[in-house]
Amino acid sequence: MEKLRSYLEANKQQHLDELLELLRIPSVSADAKFKADVLRTAEFVKDKLIAAGADKVVLEETKGYPVVYGEKIIDPKLPTVLVYGHYDVQPADPYELWHSPPFEPVIKDGNIYARGSADDKGQMYMHVKAFEAMMKNNALPCNVKFMIEGEEEIGSENLETYVKANTAKLKSDVVLISDTSIIANDIPSITTGLRGLAYLEVEVTGPNRDLHSGVYGGAVANPINALCDMISSLHDADRKINIPGFYDDVEVVSDAERAEMAKAPFSQEEYNKDLDMAEGLGEKGYSTPERVSIRPTLDVNGIWGGYIGQGAKTVLPSKAYAKISMRLVPNQSSEKITKLFEDHFVKIAPKYVKVKVTNLHGGEAAVTPTDTVAYRAASKAMETTFGKAPIPQRTGGSIPIVTMFERVLGTKTVLMGFGLDSDAIHSPNEHYGLFNYYKGIETIPYFFEYFAEMSR
Amino acid sequence: MEKLRSYLEANKQQHLDELLELLRIPSVSADAKFKADVLRTAEFVKDKLIAAGADKVVLEETKGYPVVYGEKIIDPKLPTVLVYGHYDVQPADPYELWHSPPFEPVIKDGNIYARGSADDKGQMYMHVKAFEAMMKNNALPCNVKFMIEGEEEIGSENLETYVKANTAKLKSDVVLISDTSIIANDIPSITTGLRGLAYLEVEVTGPNRDLHSGVYGGAVANPINALCDMISSLHDADRKINIPGFYDDVEVVSDAERAEMAKAPFSQEEYNKDLDMAEGLGEKGYSTPERVSIRPTLDVNGIWGGYIGQGAKTVLPSKAYAKISMRLVPNQSSEKITKLFEDHFVKIAPKYVKVKVTNLHGGEAAVTPTDTVAYRAASKAMETTFGKAPIPQRTGGSIPIVTMFERVLGTKTVLMGFGLDSDAIHSPNEHYGLFNYYKGIETIPYFFEYFAEMSR
Repeated sequence: MEKLRSYLEANKQQHLDELLELLRIPSVSADAKFKADVLRTAEFVKDKLIAAGADKVVLEETKGYPVVYGEKIIDPKLPTVLVYGHYDVQPADPYELWHSPPFEPVIKDGNIYARGSADDKGQMYMHVKAFEAMMKNNALPCNVKFMIEGEEEIGSENLETYVKANTAKLKSDVVLISDTSIIANDIPSITTGLRGLAYLEVEVTGPNRDLHSGVYGGAVANPINALCDMISSLHDADRKINIPGFYDDVEVVSDAERAEMAKAPFSQEEYNKDLDMAEGLGEKGYSTPERVSIRPTLDVNGIWGGYIGQGAKTVLPSKAYAKISMRLVPNQSSEKITKLFEDHFVKIAPKYVKVKVTNLHGGEAAVTPTDTVAYRAASKAMETTFGKAPIPQRTGGSIPIVTMFERVLGTKTVLMGFGLDSDAIHSPNEHYGLFNYYKGIETIPYFFEYFAEMSR
Repeated sequence: MEKLRSYLEANKQQHLDELLELLRIPSVSADAKFKADVLRTAEFVKDKLIAAGADKVVLEETKGYPVVYGEKIIDPKLPTVLVYGHYDVQPADPYELWHSPPFEPVIKDGNIYARGSADDKGQMYMHVKAFEAMMKNNALPCNVKFMIEGEEEIGSENLETYVKANTAKLKSDVVLISDTSIIANDIPSITTGLRGLAYLEVEVTGPNRDLHSGVYGGAVANPINALCDMISSLHDADRKINIPGFYDDVEVVSDAERAEMAKAPFSQEEYNKDLDMAEGLGEKGYSTPERVSIRPTLDVNGIWGGYIGQGAKTVLPSKAYAKISMRLVPNQSSEKITKLFEDHFVKIAPKYVKVKVTNLHGGEAAVTPTDTVAYRAASKAMETTFGKAPIPQRTGGSIPIVTMFERVLGTKTVLMGFGLDSDAIHSPNEHYGLFNYYKGIETIPYFFEYFAEMSR
């Protein structure tokens, strides 16, 4: 391990430079105009895996973007770690709110500013570099397989088909993913629960064409007003989601578990201050950490309609649109919730408008166990490098593939992420700490060592 | 008159070609990127007024776009007509809904398709051509002044300052405007009432930056949801506007007048069919023609916030925006209503968001008298060319400058427009009938003749 640490120390600049190169490719999977860049990113990851010493590295074709696969089997009798990550990123808009261009990474105050720096290029690439270090120093203690996909930010649409077709090839003892956060740089944590997601787009049509608001205003339903009415009705006064059946399957978290959660350090005051808001808003009867982890939610992620340019245009528009998503908790089925939403939204549409609902994507909530060898290995690895045992923590984001891996491969996942909630992922000025990048690369080999050791 | 009619007949193609040339210049006053085009349009109008025989033609500087002024004073003792029109147009977006490019006019089924064809280039230019015809045929029976502005579509911001500084120069006996509609090509009408306007933009801020909806969703106020709640609360169940004091000054129209209005031909069934909607929506207790003329309204003209691109982005945005306008009726003050709206919107903002309200523009409602010489002249002119006396009609649009002319110049207006409500002004595929263009050019000289005659 000493040799490996010296290697990592000696290659720090090189490891950073390669990540910056990766961050310069705008691999936005949601927007077709970046198609060539997304493919170029897959090639980049493939080349780096080969250079690091992986075998059988290929771009596995899917109906969408390819999965980068590679492996190193040192002994079939040893345990196998399947590393999952993604090389695609969220769209970068609104561009005007970035302090530096999203695809021209900048190092400032110890952070790498770029779209994808934390989610997930920076975290995924730690695994490539940690693997390289183990290979160059003859320190890989077990087998490893890499599955790096390019469609995570658009719902991993084709991954299940790929995994189903490759169950033998992907056989492993644990799935290891770094795509989550720790509580703070001095409070390590491991994510043990993730919310699911149901994401839809709605279109509301009033009159069949844009109208002059003076000539028609007052007599014709305005689809924006109607959409606002409908959206507004989706929450009740207690900020519960007002869709019949929505809470039917929600996992009830015991008072004991809630009491345990309440022990994690959290200050509502600092939270409000960080976000510059007078107060939070959420479901009555739950704390902020509970609202973002054990409770389902509904948010409008985007809305548009009518004239949105400079100045004033007196239009009564024909159409209004919104993107609406719900975060789900264990036991809720994204398919069932999607259907409930669709039916409800059509049902509450007033007669004077037409409504179209499109399902964009969905994924299931997951709870990962803490009583496995892999979890204990991850916990011990973090304790070694952070000097403090990590806290198991349920969080609000979604990595729908976790339940899929368990269902299709029968393999449990460990979510050993190194980001921070303040990394501004999915937002302008996304960043990832140099501390976190290097800490991840340092921690991963310990995970492999302990996992091999404990599996014996 | 016979000679004049032959002249118009002989020059039909020329008159059309010139209008098409005018329509090719994208004079969008709301968007600064069209600045050079707006100025080019002013030059075009100036050149054509000179060519038609006007004197003292100049571009009068304002803080914004210039006013084109020109005149022909044949005898100071004769009455004077002040022709008002505007050379600027509404923005053309959404471009993708146009069947042909908005600034490449196309003649189809007897209509000229182009942005500004009806509002107001086509109608304004009828006056230039009618004036030319009277000049070339020695048939101008009284004095005429032209005041053609370039900021009508952005609230005529600088016109009042210009008019105030030029009261002597603009002195006249009537303001004649063609910027309104007739009921149908075989049912002529003259607009005798117009609604006022108060147009605002609102900005709602939740957290200080865009957030990941998984990490923060459920605990932080989403400004889109908040904006929808606030917009939704602006109407009550009877579709009355829910702003305290909003209806305080609304002119009460007598039952007799309402009964008179109800005599104008109108079919709700055809109206719904034309707009492809199951039913209309408006204030309880009023018919559609009443809702769009004698009652004030509130419409969202545009809304935007969050991710509005292709696909799914799980963002909880920092900001959401809307453009909201109210149509006002006589006695309501746009300034007062703007203030009421601002105060109310700030007051209903929940503690967890910040709200900013910006006043974009406003204008007063107007009722024009039917007992004046000018109105009778316009009525007789239309009766001559349509073969049927026009119906006086109050309509829903706004021409705020009508009240300003009365206030500053002490001059009444006649709204002798030739458009149709179905012209799709402010919408994609705006068009103006060739019938209407030529009928306007034909009718205007009769107005001058009867007005001079009746004024004696």
